[in-house]
Amino acid sequence: MKKEVYARRVNEAARLMKESGMDVILLTKPSNMAYLTGDGRLCAYAMITKEGHVGMGVPKTDVEDVRQLAAFDEIVGFEDEVGMIHSIAHYFKHFGIESGTMGLENTFLTQSMMGMLTHPHAKPETVTTKDCTAIMSALRIVKDDEEIDHIRTAGLVAVKGMSAAIEAVKAGMTESQVAGEAEYAMRAAGAEEFWRTYVSSGPRTNIAHGLPTNRKLQEGDLVMIDIHPIVNGYSADVCRTVCVGSATSEQQAAYDLYLKALRATIAKVRAGSAIVDLDDTLHNVIKEAGHGEHLFGPTIHGVGIDFEEAPLPPGHAFFHGEKAPAPLKKGVVIAIGNCGLYIGPWGVRIEDTVVVQEETALAVTDYPYSLT
Amino acid sequence: MKKEVYARRVNEAARLMKESGMDVILLTKPSNMAYLTGDGRLCAYAMITKEGHVGMGVPKTDVEDVRQLAAFDEIVGFEDEVGMIHSIAHYFKHFGIESGTMGLENTFLTQSMMGMLTHPHAKPETVTTKDCTAIMSALRIVKDDEEIDHIRTAGLVAVKGMSAAIEAVKAGMTESQVAGEAEYAMRAAGAEEFWRTYVSSGPRTNIAHGLPTNRKLQEGDLVMIDIHPIVNGYSADVCRTVCVGSATSEQQAAYDLYLKALRATIAKVRAGSAIVDLDDTLHNVIKEAGHGEHLFGPTIHGVGIDFEEAPLPPGHAFFHGEKAPAPLKKGVVIAIGNCGLYIGPWGVRIEDTVVVQEETALAVTDYPYSLT
Repeated sequence: MKKEVYARRVNEAARLMKESGMDVILLTKPSNMAYLTGDGRLCAYAMITKEGHVGMGVPKTDVEDVRQLAAFDEIVGFEDEVGMIHSIAHYFKHFGIESGTMGLENTFLTQSMMGMLTHPHAKPETVTTKDCTAIMSALRIVKDDEEIDHIRTAGLVAVKGMSAAIEAVKAGMTESQVAGEAEYAMRAAGAEEFWRTYVSSGPRTNIAHGLPTNRKLQEGDLVMIDIHPIVNGYSADVCRTVCVGSATSEQQAAYDLYLKALRATIAKVRAGSAIVDLDDTLHNVIKEAGHGEHLFGPTIHGVGIDFEEAPLPPGHAFFHGEKAPAPLKKGVVIAIGNCGLYIGPWGVRIEDTVVVQEETALAVTDYPYSLT
Repeated sequence: MKKEVYARRVNEAARLMKESGMDVILLTKPSNMAYLTGDGRLCAYAMITKEGHVGMGVPKTDVEDVRQLAAFDEIVGFEDEVGMIHSIAHYFKHFGIESGTMGLENTFLTQSMMGMLTHPHAKPETVTTKDCTAIMSALRIVKDDEEIDHIRTAGLVAVKGMSAAIEAVKAGMTESQVAGEAEYAMRAAGAEEFWRTYVSSGPRTNIAHGLPTNRKLQEGDLVMIDIHPIVNGYSADVCRTVCVGSATSEQQAAYDLYLKALRATIAKVRAGSAIVDLDDTLHNVIKEAGHGEHLFGPTIHGVGIDFEEAPLPPGHAFFHGEKAPAPLKKGVVIAIGNCGLYIGPWGVRIEDTVVVQEETALAVTDYPYSLT
């Protein structure tokens, strides 16, 4: 992306900071850093002032690499944790910030990271802190055309990954090997990275977060595959459930029901839709079929640089430092179908990423729906 | 592992808790939960009392799965974050804890997770908190025979991954595709999971944490490959640097120097060795060759359920809530070669995992050393 894009984003960040009574924000979450500067990496930070100045701190080995990738006013390289702390102090002095309020990413920072960023040798004692999670989400929630292009490209790569995984599903394969097929295909198709792959099978399709194990697929098993490639720094999120061999009529009915609920929900997506209404739509289709109590987990989440980001459903949002979501705007990207339907000693789940448009939803992950 | 193993570990945890003035610990870090109960997963917790009682809380979908994998006294399933908070309150009541001190994982918990675990509806106001990171590390630092077997198995899988990656190194391949070869081979060889794969090439071998990109390998590039499979819940850590085609004499000299330093360090590993001395050994070989200022990053870290865990070097340890490391005991597992030697517009790094034995180091990741 062009330098102007980052300049515009930083200006918008500065505006929101002033609105929220923050004089400076100190970012360490890679996705937030990437959004405002063009580069996000661990063990690094970006300090943004309400005047729109950007100072970055990175391991001294990384200065040249970051210089080529990121837009900033200043960069310093540090040797270790002590150096990082001192470099933060340097920026406070350099930007002339002796008091005021600093925004920090409470949903990302561990207690020990927080200890470093607010260390007496880093932050002036007179600078207080507050959470800036909601500001960063507000900035990132509506995607511009270039971001949507990247997410759609990630969607194409996700489809290739899903295709490879489903092709590999047969009795005797391990969950881990199925995951491997998806990952290998995604890297071959241009993913520079991916978020953790979920593959669960048989009774394990019942659990909330089915990371792969060495369980071997058996005839009649359901297999749940959830993948999230990263391409050009942006993600897509897709989940499919398939059966090893032929499905029972109960499994097929559960699948058909989930698909009906998903389609009804996607059909309601447009600018102005409320997340709670979409959530209700999916839940109501399942409830009307008598399976309300078999549904578990939030239905929807946002997708962007992170594969799970704002908007989040209201309850979830509160505990993740987010504001309750406003009506969806054009250009917001969401994954629908994050909840599981757990009926038997197995579960089904189908999830797709879509872009909110004026009157409709644009499919990002366009992979066929078929249990068998 | 057998139930008795977890009972013994919980008893030892209870002993350390009493020594450190803690009445209860509340764990959410998967590796810590796995060590004491046999199961570790996200969005779940284990509460351990100083009497050695274990209460687990998991998503309600996961109760049956965890029941089969973990050893505990009580388990509750919750619906969402509010349910999680209430289930914690239930355990405080159930275990009769109205006051005292609760240990929490400060190096793992984000501000928002901390907010949930210490929410007024979860924790009695009269219960204070402190960091239990060092207790968990003290418990986990010496590996028993079964753990060492698992780590050695992970080492064999790591070697297969490295072999596949290096075989794929040629001009035109992307860093991401090389990573894909390693990951695919590790899953095929029995890894249920892996930690993020690092592959960097050309000028990118200079950066501290070289996650793969779509950069295409070019003739004469150095390529740094760092992989960490998880097998039976345990990790191994191996890094190799190789050249696309023929290396320059400067590259070969840097490689030979690093290898000399690594070998000198491994030769000094035995029960009673101090991490700082091993660190000095590696550094001194490099310094004596005039490249002291080209070395970056800590030399050594522990390996176990996590691929980076205690022991950590003293400076690093402080910022990660760990105590400065004691002399190494038999059964501690470490990776040596975590630092990079950044001489030109490229870097080299060679890293191996070893088990500390009475008189020597046992190689876990036994892959040949060869730049070309």
